[in-house]
Amino acid sequence: MGDAVISSEHTRKLWIGDSEAKIVLLVIDGLGGLPHPDTGKSELETATLPNLDRLAATGSSGSISPLGPGFTPGSGPAHLALFGYDPWENEIGRGALSALGLGMGFASGDVAARLNFCTVDGEGRVTDRRAGRIPTAKCRELCSILEAVSIPDVTLTIAPEMDYRAAVVFRGQNLSDAVTDSDPQVTGVRPRPLEARTTSAQATVDVANSFLLQASQLLATQSPANMVLIRGFGGYPTLPRMQDVYGLKALAIAGYPMYRGVARVVGMEIVETSSELASEFRALQANWDKFDFFYVHVKKTDSAGEDGDFEGKTRLLEDVDAFVGQILGLAPEVLVVTGDHSTPSIMKSHSWHPVPLLISSPWVNPVSAQRGFSEKQCATGDLGQIPSTAVMALALAHARRLSKFGA
Amino acid sequence: MGDAVISSEHTRKLWIGDSEAKIVLLVIDGLGGLPHPDTGKSELETATLPNLDRLAATGSSGSISPLGPGFTPGSGPAHLALFGYDPWENEIGRGALSALGLGMGFASGDVAARLNFCTVDGEGRVTDRRAGRIPTAKCRELCSILEAVSIPDVTLTIAPEMDYRAAVVFRGQNLSDAVTDSDPQVTGVRPRPLEARTTSAQATVDVANSFLLQASQLLATQSPANMVLIRGFGGYPTLPRMQDVYGLKALAIAGYPMYRGVARVVGMEIVETSSELASEFRALQANWDKFDFFYVHVKKTDSAGEDGDFEGKTRLLEDVDAFVGQILGLAPEVLVVTGDHSTPSIMKSHSWHPVPLLISSPWVNPVSAQRGFSEKQCATGDLGQIPSTAVMALALAHARRLSKFGA
Repeated sequence: MGDAVISSEHTRKLWIGDSEAKIVLLVIDGLGGLPHPDTGKSELETATLPNLDRLAATGSSGSISPLGPGFTPGSGPAHLALFGYDPWENEIGRGALSALGLGMGFASGDVAARLNFCTVDGEGRVTDRRAGRIPTAKCRELCSILEAVSIPDVTLTIAPEMDYRAAVVFRGQNLSDAVTDSDPQVTGVRPRPLEARTTSAQATVDVANSFLLQASQLLATQSPANMVLIRGFGGYPTLPRMQDVYGLKALAIAGYPMYRGVARVVGMEIVETSSELASEFRALQANWDKFDFFYVHVKKTDSAGEDGDFEGKTRLLEDVDAFVGQILGLAPEVLVVTGDHSTPSIMKSHSWHPVPLLISSPWVNPVSAQRGFSEKQCATGDLGQIPSTAVMALALAHARRLSKFGA
Repeated sequence: MGDAVISSEHTRKLWIGDSEAKIVLLVIDGLGGLPHPDTGKSELETATLPNLDRLAATGSSGSISPLGPGFTPGSGPAHLALFGYDPWENEIGRGALSALGLGMGFASGDVAARLNFCTVDGEGRVTDRRAGRIPTAKCRELCSILEAVSIPDVTLTIAPEMDYRAAVVFRGQNLSDAVTDSDPQVTGVRPRPLEARTTSAQATVDVANSFLLQASQLLATQSPANMVLIRGFGGYPTLPRMQDVYGLKALAIAGYPMYRGVARVVGMEIVETSSELASEFRALQANWDKFDFFYVHVKKTDSAGEDGDFEGKTRLLEDVDAFVGQILGLAPEVLVVTGDHSTPSIMKSHSWHPVPLLISSPWVNPVSAQRGFSEKQCATGDLGQIPSTAVMALALAHARRLSKFGA
């Protein structure tokens, strides 16, 4: 209750069908940062952000937490929370997200998993969990090789994702996603043996083991990627669609497959785009009249944070600021700017820190015209510190798309 | 989650029976506003409020949200939340609130509904949903006419409310409140046919249809109110009483019937008063020694907000400020000043925005002596941004009426 309200739980009966107000939800992946030890300033505080600073001065601001204080989310739960679904109650295997994002024809009853091409030594010990980050073209070639894998009564689909990442979908009878990962998370050790989390999942462990054995044989002569790690087993997720809970015709504009996947899970339509901002903006412009909600995803800020590239992330934020200027040119009734989670460059990883949130709309009460867009200033904004799951209700409210509850 | 505590869930075992500290909960209906486009100042920021500003500087302040971020409440849920009951879990039909407020002898097993006198044309199409807002005296006369309605095995009670509004209570066997409204919400169309939301509610649909048919015949020659719309079917709500969960002998001082209704639902006693502040203050003074909790309701601020009367709401806030001075003269141990929800004049409607909260007591830690009473300043007050359902526990705590939980 109160601050714990999850948007998708209460909007279904309240949405106003005939509103035409357009909403843009701009998700800057890994947005939140921490101060650089040399300057005491975060990436946001270091960047020059004329558009975002102006929105912070004239719009509503606050901080959002994807999972509650102290918990660091992966991209899947962080996005589900932003879309207004309880991330703790709706755990989706990463493999399922990839399969959905890659458009692999994933369906109910199937089990998907993520594959990471890796390097193993003569003893089978993992020496590089990412096989030197092989390019996507190489990944595609290796996936073709794996198509030779054959398992009785099971149909396999394998698809390359980005760099060393791929996905596999198993189709057969009585498959289960209650299977642990083989990725040991560290180098110098063998992959972990798969384990069934429930007794009925043993058949799926056998299927996956057969796949891994054949893969090791098929890839043995390759270099540097001579093995795969398997992780993130997931069945086909069933969540209420945004159309049904929010009354929104929603489009996802996201260059990376996994984000398209999570958008598809909640019923969004998907448009082809690269992860370049120019490509994403063209997609937004071209579809402006056809939808009323646009989820726009910026990926590279997170990657820079994960690489510990403070300067790179700062520069990318400046690119995003110009992108925000372009979006404002389309005059959405509501523009929400936030991130899925924080990825402070000094931590080189996702973190639990709250994420800045901005809402631009005529129906706001900004705290002060002196405000800029930063972690610190958003933390004391007029919206307070709220869960990510509340963002969709706020977006709908500012678009005047929700009726009141009760008389 | 931390902030999600609902007062009535945890206080029952903690209240201290022998405290005599008096609490006043002053609810300024529709209190929160938004900046006027010409001045950038809200109604509260425009008004001159010496008493409230002094309390803001010396008391605790914060912002409350009735339903969580983004959700706009009706008056019923907003008040239930303030009284410490989960507004999402305890939905009360508007008809039930009216019946309770009007003192109609409403009891368990009965079903109540709201009646709006309206105007229909020769084809039965609604041309004015409020029949030109007929005066209350006319409403009373039309209710007397409706007393001629007769339905086998059902007893009817009809009572006028304000203007074109009235209420009906059906008493009989196996009645249900799972019935939809006839109010079409727009003009130019016929009233909607009533529908049963559950199969067992069909008998009640038949009873209500019989009532509507007879009403149309009895009112046919009247003008402009020649028909009624029926809405907000509600059974008798059963909620724990404030006396039992908070250990409070509670009195409601509210001029408008619906607010007396919601107070009665939670077990408060009701005193006769008009909605004039002078009348309410006399009621407060006269009952000061007999109760230890006083819910005092100010209605007109909300009406001014709904009318888009920025100046009027501002002036009314100044009247309330003087009223606060009078209340302080009675020296309550705890004075809580807040609203049920926001009604920004520029929106002419209830809204989702958080509502300012003040607590005057010796046990506070105010943020700054420079503070005044406004949306912005309360948003960054020492109490933070909390759900409305937390207010009662805070009020009890400041009155030293709650023992500690656990040893």
